[in-house]
Amino acid sequence: MPVIHVTQQQTFPQLDVPPRLLLGPGPANTHPRVVQAMGMPTLGHLDPVLLTLMGEVQELLRYAWQTENECTLVISGTGTAAMETAVANLVEPGDVVLVGVIGYFGQRLVEMAGRYGGKVHTIAKAWGETFTLAEIEAALVQYQPAILMLVHAETSTGALQSLASIGALCHAHNCLFLTDSVTSLGAAPLFLDEWEIDVAYSCSQKGLSCPPGASPITFSPRALHKLENRKHKVGSWYFDITLLRPYWFGATRSYHHTMSSNMIYALREGLRLVAEEGLEARWQCHQANAHMLWEGLAALDLTCHVSDPAQRIPSLTTVRVPDGVDAAATAKQLLHEYNIEIAGGFSQLAGKVWRIGLMGYNSRAENVALLLHALERVLHE
Amino acid sequence: MPVIHVTQQQTFPQLDVPPRLLLGPGPANTHPRVVQAMGMPTLGHLDPVLLTLMGEVQELLRYAWQTENECTLVISGTGTAAMETAVANLVEPGDVVLVGVIGYFGQRLVEMAGRYGGKVHTIAKAWGETFTLAEIEAALVQYQPAILMLVHAETSTGALQSLASIGALCHAHNCLFLTDSVTSLGAAPLFLDEWEIDVAYSCSQKGLSCPPGASPITFSPRALHKLENRKHKVGSWYFDITLLRPYWFGATRSYHHTMSSNMIYALREGLRLVAEEGLEARWQCHQANAHMLWEGLAALDLTCHVSDPAQRIPSLTTVRVPDGVDAAATAKQLLHEYNIEIAGGFSQLAGKVWRIGLMGYNSRAENVALLLHALERVLHE
Repeated sequence: MPVIHVTQQQTFPQLDVPPRLLLGPGPANTHPRVVQAMGMPTLGHLDPVLLTLMGEVQELLRYAWQTENECTLVISGTGTAAMETAVANLVEPGDVVLVGVIGYFGQRLVEMAGRYGGKVHTIAKAWGETFTLAEIEAALVQYQPAILMLVHAETSTGALQSLASIGALCHAHNCLFLTDSVTSLGAAPLFLDEWEIDVAYSCSQKGLSCPPGASPITFSPRALHKLENRKHKVGSWYFDITLLRPYWFGATRSYHHTMSSNMIYALREGLRLVAEEGLEARWQCHQANAHMLWEGLAALDLTCHVSDPAQRIPSLTTVRVPDGVDAAATAKQLLHEYNIEIAGGFSQLAGKVWRIGLMGYNSRAENVALLLHALERVLHE
Repeated sequence: MPVIHVTQQQTFPQLDVPPRLLLGPGPANTHPRVVQAMGMPTLGHLDPVLLTLMGEVQELLRYAWQTENECTLVISGTGTAAMETAVANLVEPGDVVLVGVIGYFGQRLVEMAGRYGGKVHTIAKAWGETFTLAEIEAALVQYQPAILMLVHAETSTGALQSLASIGALCHAHNCLFLTDSVTSLGAAPLFLDEWEIDVAYSCSQKGLSCPPGASPITFSPRALHKLENRKHKVGSWYFDITLLRPYWFGATRSYHHTMSSNMIYALREGLRLVAEEGLEARWQCHQANAHMLWEGLAALDLTCHVSDPAQRIPSLTTVRVPDGVDAAATAKQLLHEYNIEIAGGFSQLAGKVWRIGLMGYNSRAENVALLLHALERVLHE
């Protein structure tokens, strides 16, 4: 046997982490009940008890998304993994794809759709704005896409894209409708079936109050029909829904990958909290705390980047950085002096906005009060 | 606002799970210290404290793998995600790839390499056997591959492929060497640099005693050179190492996806346990408990599927199912009467073997004793 090199055999101290209040674009703080659930004993990925719990997660997701889609499941990865799953399964090489770009995450969809062989067209608005129905319709007529992709809550800008009626418009133009609901699920009104959305995905660490790592996705019967009639295999094996379905559905469950029981426990608990509270109460809570934040910001002479309150994401607010203020230094000071995490903008909005999240468990009046007080001291002292 | 459908607003009871002893092919039971670490407060994916912890995980992984590879990091997904990351980054369309297939996971590499455009050739052995150095050399001469892929510990068969000298042989033939160490890391001797392995990946839920969901991967300078000179973008965005490196390395960390702090805590703790025990002691422990199992199985007149003990994986034993015994019924009885999970075989070995894992935290004499006793009662009463 070769010699074991012990140069790297460092022993690091027992884990300790600061008690951050996570008011950035996600993750939010994990709900204590989710932490507790996640620590329950690990189960095998084919244990009948785990399969039952997975079925409950599917039911709870259907409620949270307001959909009857049978093909509703969880990807073993972060929201970005679920985004790639949506794109990889829906787009075939040569498909005409139209992406509405109102910020960074729309741009990411463009990049992914291109990697999976889509002929990608884009329409774009300034970061902070959203599309009108007429603009969408004109683009559908112009590009005749097989798939339209839109981000519901664009976390990079704080803008909430209205989705009602777009699905029906897509279907009238023989087009499938994919939406990113990473930041909206569990935080803002979302009606997948009513709005005729064909594919949606989300994450665990925002509106659902879980750690990152397990990401919901759902496919309408229309989307499944396209998937089942693909001419090419899905480019990715890990994200291939045709291979994941026999694991998630049916009488004989067949191994695909080692699903994390502990993340299923977490997601089930986060979704139980949504169901217990009820969607309407939950959406109202996010809206009320957002209003409290917006009023407090105005009292500090700070301006929201998205001017129309109806177009703001209730769980993620972008605030303009006043002239002469160093955005990064302010965020760093909040982190170091108050253990509060907020984020800056990036790309087009780098240095120009802060991004403040009030998501899931963190959407509470006491967090708004603390942040406003800390922000006032940091800015005005 | 549309009407909220409450038909799916089911409330499920508080989570409860049975206290399984996980003696299948993984996951193993999560170490209590890992559970404790995982429950610490969530941190943002760009928090300086998390970035420090990620650096510690990288150091600890280099020790566990016995490598000085700078490009050692963690994929946010299961071992299968890390496998796909290895393949997606190393294989370019048109590359000649040689895969040694000694079981299911070799076959999976064939499938993935094909999806990423490789011109794939295979050599194969019966499930339970391994390749000799001469067989590998003959295939390198015949196919002149750019990449050779081998599974170190083939979990579907219980066979441990000897890897010493193969890397040097590959490099003499101008070929890169990729190995799957999903089941061997932290359980069986593994010397990445000494054995000249260019790309290796693993998982969290076997030798490292964590839940599934965060998967180590490492690239040698030779592998990075190929990656940096690719003509085509990596097919997957989520698994693209050229995008992941700016998040994991360098002075300015840039966002790629939302890494789970809680899984980093888990992995750090699992790897700390490896470093505290020391690799040599850990490998000896796995070997000693495997021997205890093998002797106990022989006393029950049961035969190991891999005849040569030196070619058996110390952390995963395949046992032949005696004539007239229903393999699935036995496993089910162990689960329901004793809360012990073992697994059956699949594909070529379906119904013919059981697979018994003694991995990481579960590699303990008391688990062997309990299993042998329970197995005897189930088989002979």
